[in-house]
Amino acid sequence: MGAEGGKATRADTQRTRELLLDVLGELLESRGLAVSMPELAREAGVSVATVYRHFDDVHDLRQEFYQRTISKLIARLTQLSEEFSGLELFQRMCDDWVLLASQWARAAAFIRSPEGFIERVRHGDPHMGQLYDLLRPVVSGLMTDRVIEERNVDYGVMLWATLFDERVIVDLESGLGWASTSIARRLSATFLDAMQRSR
Amino acid sequence: MGAEGGKATRADTQRTRELLLDVLGELLESRGLAVSMPELAREAGVSVATVYRHFDDVHDLRQEFYQRTISKLIARLTQLSEEFSGLELFQRMCDDWVLLASQWARAAAFIRSPEGFIERVRHGDPHMGQLYDLLRPVVSGLMTDRVIEERNVDYGVMLWATLFDERVIVDLESGLGWASTSIARRLSATFLDAMQRSR
Repeated sequence: MGAEGGKATRADTQRTRELLLDVLGELLESRGLAVSMPELAREAGVSVATVYRHFDDVHDLRQEFYQRTISKLIARLTQLSEEFSGLELFQRMCDDWVLLASQWARAAAFIRSPEGFIERVRHGDPHMGQLYDLLRPVVSGLMTDRVIEERNVDYGVMLWATLFDERVIVDLESGLGWASTSIARRLSATFLDAMQRSR
Repeated sequence: MGAEGGKATRADTQRTRELLLDVLGELLESRGLAVSMPELAREAGVSVATVYRHFDDVHDLRQEFYQRTISKLIARLTQLSEEFSGLELFQRMCDDWVLLASQWARAAAFIRSPEGFIERVRHGDPHMGQLYDLLRPVVSGLMTDRVIEERNVDYGVMLWATLFDERVIVDLESGLGWASTSIARRLSATFLDAMQRSR
């Protein structure tokens, strides 16, 4: 019973942590970044002490949220890479990225490094490295299939990461009022058009 | 003589301030962002107290450097707008932006807001507002001249600001090792290609 109890407690702890991050996600979407630890506690229906048991401060909270979300996103893109290929894979990656990214874009914009994408990959940022490893074969595959022109693959990967930046997604959503399906369609068309011709 | 002396002092003060910002610019380029107030004093050949008389701290220094540089950049683009038009104006703006931006890109990347471009314009950021006012007629002119297709002008302006983001310029320079002329050429071609077709 003691061991069982211990297990249940660890599972509970993990569940509370996930719950707090879920609630944070909802708060970030509904009211932007001004979320305090007491507010999160109130919304999640737990004590402030519980929130502090899981996270050091608001910065730590956002960081954890960002890490969890980008891990999910990369898992999703990895799964797509196993199921699809070529242009269909590309379009699905664009769609799912925009859909998921719009949920964490505001948090990410405050957290992410001021370095460029390629720099972060080179400096060993693990998530950017995984993203690069996922994107490179997709871009290179589009070149092989002659969907886009043969040219610098790294430039293509960097262009994709630039166009699908969280700030751009937020801008098109809240600045221009576009729906996420329109954003995904427009950004992927922008990428393909930009990579198609050679000047 | 007293009034003359006072004038000279104010002019000296202004000159010292400009000198400090010039030296900061050189340090940012040569050794990145880890520039301290004492280092700046040493490089500029003034006392540490003088640096502190002009700037509160390193953050203030970067902020002032960024403000001064973006003002210069906007003045330069305004001048181009008066002298040129159409595609030539567009190409010259792209070239000069990349050339000047590479000098302040690292500082800017650390200073700039996590908001998107359109959001910053809407929230009244004065420099982004000026930049928007300069870019909008250029993009719209390219549409009138049929250099690019008729479509959402705001998307065009946002796309330009996204592609010519300081982080992208730094990435292509230090990540891929491109020269600023190649960067300007590739980014402007990317913009024109992306805006040319409709999918």
